[in-house]
Amino acid sequence: MGTQGKVIRCKATVLWKPGAPLAIEEIEVAPPKAKEVRIKMVATGVCGTDIKHLDTQELSKFCPMIMGHEGVGIVESVGEGVSSVRTGDKVILLCIPQCGECKTCLNSKNNICTEIRLSKTHLASEGTSRITCKGKLVHQYIALGSFSEYTVLKEISVAKIDEGAPLEKVCIIGCGFATGYGAAINSAKVTPGSTCAVFGLGGVGLSVIIGCKAAGAARIIAVDINKDRFAKAKTVGATDCVDPRDFEKPIEEVLSDMIDGGVDFCFEVTGNTEAVGAALGSCHKDHGVCVTVGALASFTSTLSIRSHLFFSGRILKGSILGGWKTKEEIPKLVSDYMAKKFNIDPLITHTLTLSEANEAVQLMKSGQCIRCVLLL
Amino acid sequence: MGTQGKVIRCKATVLWKPGAPLAIEEIEVAPPKAKEVRIKMVATGVCGTDIKHLDTQELSKFCPMIMGHEGVGIVESVGEGVSSVRTGDKVILLCIPQCGECKTCLNSKNNICTEIRLSKTHLASEGTSRITCKGKLVHQYIALGSFSEYTVLKEISVAKIDEGAPLEKVCIIGCGFATGYGAAINSAKVTPGSTCAVFGLGGVGLSVIIGCKAAGAARIIAVDINKDRFAKAKTVGATDCVDPRDFEKPIEEVLSDMIDGGVDFCFEVTGNTEAVGAALGSCHKDHGVCVTVGALASFTSTLSIRSHLFFSGRILKGSILGGWKTKEEIPKLVSDYMAKKFNIDPLITHTLTLSEANEAVQLMKSGQCIRCVLLL
Repeated sequence: MGTQGKVIRCKATVLWKPGAPLAIEEIEVAPPKAKEVRIKMVATGVCGTDIKHLDTQELSKFCPMIMGHEGVGIVESVGEGVSSVRTGDKVILLCIPQCGECKTCLNSKNNICTEIRLSKTHLASEGTSRITCKGKLVHQYIALGSFSEYTVLKEISVAKIDEGAPLEKVCIIGCGFATGYGAAINSAKVTPGSTCAVFGLGGVGLSVIIGCKAAGAARIIAVDINKDRFAKAKTVGATDCVDPRDFEKPIEEVLSDMIDGGVDFCFEVTGNTEAVGAALGSCHKDHGVCVTVGALASFTSTLSIRSHLFFSGRILKGSILGGWKTKEEIPKLVSDYMAKKFNIDPLITHTLTLSEANEAVQLMKSGQCIRCVLLL
Repeated sequence: MGTQGKVIRCKATVLWKPGAPLAIEEIEVAPPKAKEVRIKMVATGVCGTDIKHLDTQELSKFCPMIMGHEGVGIVESVGEGVSSVRTGDKVILLCIPQCGECKTCLNSKNNICTEIRLSKTHLASEGTSRITCKGKLVHQYIALGSFSEYTVLKEISVAKIDEGAPLEKVCIIGCGFATGYGAAINSAKVTPGSTCAVFGLGGVGLSVIIGCKAAGAARIIAVDINKDRFAKAKTVGATDCVDPRDFEKPIEEVLSDMIDGGVDFCFEVTGNTEAVGAALGSCHKDHGVCVTVGALASFTSTLSIRSHLFFSGRILKGSILGGWKTKEEIPKLVSDYMAKKFNIDPLITHTLTLSEANEAVQLMKSGQCIRCVLLL
């Protein structure tokens, strides 16, 4: 391409301060340096984590910032020493990098590469960013920043995917889908014929259902206080839908009545710390596994759990990004989708353009959409 | 034997009311009925659970009662329809029965047979007891009651063990040892080369250490505020011993400093609900497994756990009686001990007689002994 080695001027949505609307701005994207990749972004999902953080003051010191992390694109050029992708490759952004060399990457049980430290800086290029806007350095949300026509990332934060992959769909595999699907497959290890319950039917919760179904669960109970989500839950595999507000007794008793003794696997995907005890209590007392999926709403909150719930063998565990070793395994999920091992299409309820980013944010905030994809 | 079919008069220790000393009494033990077994008891361990309950008012309605549950003996006679043991067999008492037919027994992941319901009644013979004392029906602690020269139990609550087994040793396998050893082997599934920490160095905690060692752990850190236990911990396999009171910083930070990033497996064996958060926090953030072993001190208490501990993959799980399918697997532990796969001898610090039961109780209460065995 004629752009290689040159600064690219293009559009991006920029957050100038927390709570402000996203502004469509012209940005400058410098060429990638060693071990970096410049990507022409094609599509990005709008994830609940973006929405949750948009308005929080903790982002103020990182503004201006480009939000978004559930993205896919095509490699425009690569810096020195990049070997895993090349110009023209379709790539997916990795919310957790996989350097392949750190203690974590070398441990088969873990998926949080130590290079995730970059996320907290919101700078993708080791203390800096290749992106500027109106003379200012632009931060990239969790060291990615996908709401942009071009971006520069470390090689360890992108993975090559199948060249036939429909980018406007598979973008959501990068975060929301991988998180939910992997929680069922990797973290809970749902077994064939088992009983499952999923608390919270957003994009991640529905992806958990898809995972439970793929694992062969016999019964999948979808739980939410938003009944509008029930039809979609059934589409992706739920066998039953329950609104806890329809019952006077606690949801754990409702589920214990439905499934004698409680479910084998329960997933807490509401992000509500208070729901964790109920989710754990909904599991079978002797062998039930409860997985808290993704970041709980308040990172510093305290879980209050009745100690008897752990008397005889219940398990409570965390799960982040579905436990996937990202660079290695996320591309396989894309291929599995293309091979129709599961279907993510029902999760994408809206497709808009970059200039409609604020509309997408409103759709997510109002709960009217499951996943909104922005075409870039 | 000449006693078959007749009432046997013998000695037992009887608790007439909570908090009272155990009284050595003459009792009458009726012959076993269908599916029951009468056992000449030979030895019993004195377990922390006995000690904890001795003084609690909740036992008052079950008095008079024979305490004890960590027992072994020789079958004196069997009732109709008993097929798994016969007169003369050495048997071990099972703290959780294994009927082999209920939903739980048929589930490979569980070990709490539904017949455990008998425990709460403290009656071993379906609503009654074959034992009387001074004209009163005598209850049997958790439907066992091992502090007695003879007892009658259901067939599902006893298992035949190797005929060469030294009964004065293997009695402690029935509860304390099985609980700790199994927590490491079955519940945590400790892996070779891994790092472990054990909070609480009583008989169960030391058995956890034996399990960690048998599983090939590379580092086993013993944690207790009673330094007198450290020598014993090292004898059974601890590589390091830590008294949390020697540090100003929290124990989880002490352990994280010792083992970069925290231990792979941590066991909470103090029974203290407040220690659960510290034990979980001592585990590696991404894959650490924390097992709460046995019943927590207060069954109705609430665990307060900082939610971020579950952010990326820590696991918290309960474990009861080490997860063993009792009738099937406890006898194998006896055989494994005889084959020197592990050594329980260091756990037995005192051996007394039935008439010295109160002395044994005092030894346990004072923390001076690990396990005291009573010869019956």
